[in-house]
Amino acid sequence: MSLQIDENGRLRHLLDLATLPVTAMDALLRRAQAFADGAQVSDALSGRAVCTLFFEPSTRTRLSFQLAAQRLGAQILNFDASTSSATKGETDLDTFRNLQAMGVRGFVVRHKADGAVAALAQATAPGVAIINAGDGRSHHPSQGLLDMLTLRQAKGEDFSKLKVVIVGDVKHSRVARSDLHALRALGCGEIRVCGPATLLPDDDTLHGCTVTGDFDAALNGVDVAMMLRLQRERMVEGLVASLDDYHRDYGLTAVRLRRAAADAIVMHPGPMNRGIEITDEVADGPQSWVLRQVANGVAVRMAVLEAVLS
Amino acid sequence: MSLQIDENGRLRHLLDLATLPVTAMDALLRRAQAFADGAQVSDALSGRAVCTLFFEPSTRTRLSFQLAAQRLGAQILNFDASTSSATKGETDLDTFRNLQAMGVRGFVVRHKADGAVAALAQATAPGVAIINAGDGRSHHPSQGLLDMLTLRQAKGEDFSKLKVVIVGDVKHSRVARSDLHALRALGCGEIRVCGPATLLPDDDTLHGCTVTGDFDAALNGVDVAMMLRLQRERMVEGLVASLDDYHRDYGLTAVRLRRAAADAIVMHPGPMNRGIEITDEVADGPQSWVLRQVANGVAVRMAVLEAVLS
Amino acid sequence: MSLQIDENGRLRHLLDLATLPVTAMDALLRRAQAFADGAQVSDALSGRAVCTLFFEPSTRTRLSFQLAAQRLGAQILNFDASTSSATKGETDLDTFRNLQAMGVRGFVVRHKADGAVAALAQATAPGVAIINAGDGRSHHPSQGLLDMLTLRQAKGEDFSKLKVVIVGDVKHSRVARSDLHALRALGCGEIRVCGPATLLPDDDTLHGCTVTGDFDAALNGVDVAMMLRLQRERMVEGLVASLDDYHRDYGLTAVRLRRAAADAIVMHPGPMNRGIEITDEVADGPQSWVLRQVANGVAVRMAVLEAVLS
Repeated sequence: MSLQIDENGRLRHLLDLATLPVTAMDALLRRAQAFADGAQVSDALSGRAVCTLFFEPSTRTRLSFQLAAQRLGAQILNFDASTSSATKGETDLDTFRNLQAMGVRGFVVRHKADGAVAALAQATAPGVAIINAGDGRSHHPSQGLLDMLTLRQAKGEDFSKLKVVIVGDVKHSRVARSDLHALRALGCGEIRVCGPATLLPDDDTLHGCTVTGDFDAALNGVDVAMMLRLQRERMVEGLVASLDDYHRDYGLTAVRLRRAAADAIVMHPGPMNRGIEITDEVADGPQSWVLRQVANGVAVRMAVLEAVLS
Repeated sequence: MSLQIDENGRLRHLLDLATLPVTAMDALLRRAQAFADGAQVSDALSGRAVCTLFFEPSTRTRLSFQLAAQRLGAQILNFDASTSSATKGETDLDTFRNLQAMGVRGFVVRHKADGAVAALAQATAPGVAIINAGDGRSHHPSQGLLDMLTLRQAKGEDFSKLKVVIVGDVKHSRVARSDLHALRALGCGEIRVCGPATLLPDDDTLHGCTVTGDFDAALNGVDVAMMLRLQRERMVEGLVASLDDYHRDYGLTAVRLRRAAADAIVMHPGPMNRGIEITDEVADGPQSWVLRQVANGVAVRMAVLEAVLS
Repeated sequence: MSLQIDENGRLRHLLDLATLPVTAMDALLRRAQAFADGAQVSDALSGRAVCTLFFEPSTRTRLSFQLAAQRLGAQILNFDASTSSATKGETDLDTFRNLQAMGVRGFVVRHKADGAVAALAQATAPGVAIINAGDGRSHHPSQGLLDMLTLRQAKGEDFSKLKVVIVGDVKHSRVARSDLHALRALGCGEIRVCGPATLLPDDDTLHGCTVTGDFDAALNGVDVAMMLRLQRERMVEGLVASLDDYHRDYGLTAVRLRRAAADAIVMHPGPMNRGIEITDEVADGPQSWVLRQVANGVAVRMAVLEAVLS
């Protein structure tokens, strides 16, 4: 029992993958695969109101959740709380409580502050669910789940012999953290993490991982290369010397990809910076599963919404 | 018969509470109570298109109407006319006529100019309804109705012995004006108005009210304290010396609230400035009906939309 | 067979009227007339997701498509790609591919660059349709179709004796270009084009048209005056000396309109600059079909969405 799982063992909120039982993770992935295979449930959430409540803007994630909610028959509202006029100086908690009082039953929340989404979950009324759509650098559980679904489709359910490399700005990435939690929970054989020292975390985020700054070495024989987006602000902050340097050292090219296993797949959470962390040839090549990730995102979010709301 | 009531005595538009017959007000409140009690009418407005047309932004009021419209099965569109690119120099009337020509049947309109919403009601085609979601300092009828519904739930339908105090920036408040119209129409026993002289209107808005600048005196024995939001721009305009001064003189604290009746309730139209017109202790305390107001807002707006559109 | 028409002769995308077979144009217009007459098809697109993808903002066109999609029972999403945060430096093609991967089946696309919408149509998966909602100065086919529907309603289906004048900034107008393609395809008897030399195109856009700078002469005996919006930026660019001069030379007044046939109609794609290209008296007068155009817009867009998606 926890904030995420209720006394009957059911998913109440989806806040993080770090504390999500592996049985719950597996159940969500199986249901998501059924949706990816075309399972129809057009009225599972009929009459239920779901609100995207984004304190930090993100059009793509919002639309993915919106499509998932609509396919389940839910009513969907969008509240862009990232503009000051939307909340008029109101506290985040008051904004949330107001929408809850209006009868919204599901909240898809993004926030720039670590822990802010879990804090809202503490304030929910019975029957109201929170889904974390990304908080700070901490968690992005639906992204972690869609990445795991993609891995299962490509490599099967047994991850014990899988070699995965995560490349880039792990330090600032909630995607990387959620993937690491999920890969460990699902028993991934070997996790490598690669990036410039300035972009690697110095806490226990990387426990159990092989860490290196040498991208060529890190790619040797991997089954999966998970590329991360390089935020351009890292250059302004002095963490990266130049985009050219970054591309030279950590950009995935077709030549470099040959170091990986012949059937290795390439993943990226999007949006891609083409020519920086990934070349066109790789992004659009036969080993790219990037668009499959996007498709799986809707299936995973359907499974999550259904689990917490029906 | 008037702009609001048609020749058959039915509600055609909802523009203000000042000229709304008390029978119409009572009918809306009874229907709203049924919705608050869970009455289902998921297809009352099926196939009908409702558009929120906001010439002044307001996310919360828009979402409340949107939820109400969706629960009635209506199609909902949002037109944020407060950004210049939305209307490209077009007149408000042309913007309205265009949406009307597209087949929109219900318009939820907010405008910063007094009378601008009623002006659009003059231009409606047969079968098209306007709901005033706030114009200038004049009217906010759905807020007035939801406040009356909240009062009925807390204090019963007979208002003749009720003592209500309205506190704060009454001068610039359409909420206060709509509440005053409704309280008078429903026969409220005693209406007190309290605030600094700079924020009280000098016209006939307050006729029949007891007016004072002494908040402690005004609170003595009241059944209801309706707190108003203090817009921070009032300080820039020199109408309020400082937020600290305002809080000291007109902020509702737990200590002050003891002057009211033991079962007095506290109301606020939101969003609250915590620490200014109201303390956390009061806002979140057992006498606060603030979130009940929010919940009643959806029920009232369902009743209004159903009345004018079905 | 072309990008717009598939091997079975069915409409696959709507990109332009220049290459649309007249039989396809006629079929769309007939179906649109049925919708204008009240034909009901509330679940033709049930479960289908349609996304408005606007790389250039346009609230009115977006809402018209949204209403059309909702009437057909489609799920509608809006992606305003004109704000930089929406796409985060992603290419237009990646933005499109992502939405397509999410399962969106119909895209209503506006773009400021000529040809950008047709380029996306090259990248569609099977079963995915693109509708051009305006690209650069080139095409605005749904506007052209709604103008033709309006002409048919006013003047009948035989255009062979029709005299039409198009007035204003033809050079920068995708509306004018789409109207010209459609008028020629439907056999319009005489097409006159009138405007200052600086606002007339010098390519083959006007082939087959009578071109003049003399508005009074151009109006003589016409059955239809199609007025274009004058973008105020034309003055900044030095293409128009002043709005007063433009109004004097090319503004349609009630006096000028007497030169046209007694039953001539006046059209305008909106939003109107009242007092510049058209006076209030004409815009709101008995010969104005401007709001009828707006109403026809929804009917035409229903016909287009139904044709490409069902």
